[in-house]
Amino acid sequence: MNNVNEQHGIFRSSLGPSQILVAGFLMVILVATVLLMLPISSQSGQTTGFIDALFTSTSAVCVTGLVVVNTLEYWSLFGKIVILFCIQIGGLGFMSLVSMIFVFMGKKITLKNRLLMQEAFSFNTTAGIVRFAKAVVQLTFLVEGIGAILLSLVFIPEHGLIKGIGYSIFHAISAFCNAGFDLVGSNSLVPYVGNGIINFTIMGLIIASGLGFSVWIDTYNIIKMKRQSAEHFTWKQAFYKLSLHTKLVWTITIILIVIGFVFFFLVEYNNPATLGALSLKDKIYAALFQSVAPRTAGFNTLPLAELTPASQLMSVILMFIGGSPAGTAGGVKTVTIGVLVLCALSTIKGRENTVVYKRRIPMAVIARALTVVIIAIVVVLGTLMILTVTEDAAFMELLFEVVSAFGTVGSTLGITTSLTPIGKIIIIMLMFIGRLGTITIAVALMVRQGKTKEKHIIQYPEEKVLVG
Amino acid sequence: MNNVNEQHGIFRSSLGPSQILVAGFLMVILVATVLLMLPISSQSGQTTGFIDALFTSTSAVCVTGLVVVNTLEYWSLFGKIVILFCIQIGGLGFMSLVSMIFVFMGKKITLKNRLLMQEAFSFNTTAGIVRFAKAVVQLTFLVEGIGAILLSLVFIPEHGLIKGIGYSIFHAISAFCNAGFDLVGSNSLVPYVGNGIINFTIMGLIIASGLGFSVWIDTYNIIKMKRQSAEHFTWKQAFYKLSLHTKLVWTITIILIVIGFVFFFLVEYNNPATLGALSLKDKIYAALFQSVAPRTAGFNTLPLAELTPASQLMSVILMFIGGSPAGTAGGVKTVTIGVLVLCALSTIKGRENTVVYKRRIPMAVIARALTVVIIAIVVVLGTLMILTVTEDAAFMELLFEVVSAFGTVGSTLGITTSLTPIGKIIIIMLMFIGRLGTITIAVALMVRQGKTKEKHIIQYPEEKVLVG
Ligand SMILES: [K+]
Ligand SMILES: [K+]
Repeated sequence: MNNVNEQHGIFRSSLGPSQILVAGFLMVILVATVLLMLPISSQSGQTTGFIDALFTSTSAVCVTGLVVVNTLEYWSLFGKIVILFCIQIGGLGFMSLVSMIFVFMGKKITLKNRLLMQEAFSFNTTAGIVRFAKAVVQLTFLVEGIGAILLSLVFIPEHGLIKGIGYSIFHAISAFCNAGFDLVGSNSLVPYVGNGIINFTIMGLIIASGLGFSVWIDTYNIIKMKRQSAEHFTWKQAFYKLSLHTKLVWTITIILIVIGFVFFFLVEYNNPATLGALSLKDKIYAALFQSVAPRTAGFNTLPLAELTPASQLMSVILMFIGGSPAGTAGGVKTVTIGVLVLCALSTIKGRENTVVYKRRIPMAVIARALTVVIIAIVVVLGTLMILTVTEDAAFMELLFEVVSAFGTVGSTLGITTSLTPIGKIIIIMLMFIGRLGTITIAVALMVRQGKTKEKHIIQYPEEKVLVG
Repeated sequence: MNNVNEQHGIFRSSLGPSQILVAGFLMVILVATVLLMLPISSQSGQTTGFIDALFTSTSAVCVTGLVVVNTLEYWSLFGKIVILFCIQIGGLGFMSLVSMIFVFMGKKITLKNRLLMQEAFSFNTTAGIVRFAKAVVQLTFLVEGIGAILLSLVFIPEHGLIKGIGYSIFHAISAFCNAGFDLVGSNSLVPYVGNGIINFTIMGLIIASGLGFSVWIDTYNIIKMKRQSAEHFTWKQAFYKLSLHTKLVWTITIILIVIGFVFFFLVEYNNPATLGALSLKDKIYAALFQSVAPRTAGFNTLPLAELTPASQLMSVILMFIGGSPAGTAGGVKTVTIGVLVLCALSTIKGRENTVVYKRRIPMAVIARALTVVIIAIVVVLGTLMILTVTEDAAFMELLFEVVSAFGTVGSTLGITTSLTPIGKIIIIMLMFIGRLGTITIAVALMVRQGKTKEKHIIQYPEEKVLVG
């Protein structure tokens, strides 16, 4: 009976943190949709259709970046500001905004609100969550501010003071929130493929937010400790003092960036439509950017439709993996894939346990990672099949679009604007599921695993089966 | 140090059963390649090129069924007999042939030969393996014989007595061994789309061998017990008396066939190039056949290239899953996928253990299943990327070809004959890895997990990480 109660508990309608989070996101999306439909939001002064407005607001709030209309040309200044607000709310997590308001108003934060924030950040403990949320908000504005200043070195000379500052702020927020919206034109950041400031500022912002806030705070604390501590310890020792989560995030992120860079550099080297025409410096910039961007950024400096199919497939794989947990990134997350690969490597080595950095990863975590990936594969393949029926596009274009939407990446091979209404609705749902699904599923699983008392349930005998 | 020894042990060169199995298959392939290169093997009486002969013999021995030349038109009677021998040797497992020779010669089977057979059948225990192997060989010839008699009802009227019997034997062996070679022409069994005898005989043979021998023997024993037992028990009780492995194989196989049937029936219903033009009876036949065939059969009664992209994708998924362990089927196997899905379902229900049919599935088995699938995904995606560079074909055509080769299915969207030499070599390697890789990897993992004494190794503390 206990088990039955648990099952209903997770789907209890009114008060679960997951439901409030979902409802909150829905509310923001709907308000933004109405605002974007108003004539004041478009350059032409005309009313925007419901589906296109819903698509844009969902894409912004879910920090995806797929667009059915050209952001620069279609939306008015008011419309652009609405989009920017959606991005900032979605990226920072609107729960942290709620908590910030609570904190700044000096109100004592309630346990329920703590739980909400815990869910928004996939944070493990309620202890110190308020301090954590404050740090997150401060850090976000600080990093976005630095990014905007760096970008303004390019945008102010190009667009004048006022417009230049606006552009800089827009792109800094868009990059840090992993939104991928841009005001450059119809092909993302392709015009800036060789621009060092744009490249490294945007990449820095993408990587920073893609790592997840807790990783930054953990790393910062260890570096501070190393400096202030009386006893001397080496960098390697310092690295080991990081939490296992932080160690894994750094390791996997660096491995993925290096693999992606080498892959794109070699495969695209002679492609005249992409790297082939560029200087060696620009080739390196572009390959690196293409490797970093699928960490759910949604920006690109190479024309994606011109990439070789191998590079497009590699981009799809990187987009599916996405960024790291507890940040603004989407995808099934680096650590999720990392945990599964580590389990496989341990099995190949004949180990009973999954061991990394002298720590055992609990089986419950591996089961959770497996569950997240299986759900993601089912969602991606299911929607992909529907789209192959409703849309008139090549298979790779649809695969790219679906994984991009689910991973809240926002890159496209160019079919977004010509989607059918059914296709648009499916992509809207995918963006929403991609942004909130993995978080809520992961949290729901964690809560259940924590609550269920297996000892109350009959312990069945083990029996082996053959696999492979 | 113990661990280090284990690691070297698995790759020890000369005497491991896995190595002998691989070497044996390689030898058969090379002998067949030489025979097929001879002028006597081709209709035209000309020498066949090394790569095409190697491709054909690998495809036959690995019971894949992909062909670079039309089997009916290109090969002479001698060549066809060589191919048929390759299929029978590859399908039955040449190890069981070796054991059969031993048994029939009345020699006492050595422990080493038992281990070899154990590997060939993924069998869990050495006890009774000789009896098991004998049963396998008898069963194979019995079922192939019945299949040939049924097929002759169609083929003798069509081709006369001698040729009709030859056709019946060829297709019965090809179907039961999951080889997918046919003598009908260039488009598999498409001309027989509405022929009841051909459809149900071939499907029966495919399903029978796809279930795996141990499942048949287990099921047969329980049915016999139910009949002969003094105490009466229901069919449900009888089902529960089956081993967990057998229960899972039956359940998953039936689920996959039903899902596939409903999917193809609905999605292709109005496709004029496939089901659209057929009568309702033929529609049902064709949808069912298309659902059964990806269990690594390699036959098709619908023109695969004309299927909708959604159906092609569904076929790819079914081909990747493949048949059940310890039979002639390929793919990552039904039980492998089943175990992972069950783990996810248990996790969603908040259970600590993976439970099905009142039995716990050991974590070691789940880890092994995960490892097999991850290796399969890496192999498929890696070779797919290479082929997108070397071949001039659509992405779906290449994806279909790669999964078909790896899963030893042998279906194609039509690009096999026009592969480049590099493409042919990659597909040859894929067929070989697909046939032997999963078996040897799974066995190697089982051996290692069995041997490693984790208690001798430092037990590291657990630490959780965030996933999803
Ligand atoms: K994005
Ligand atoms: K086959």
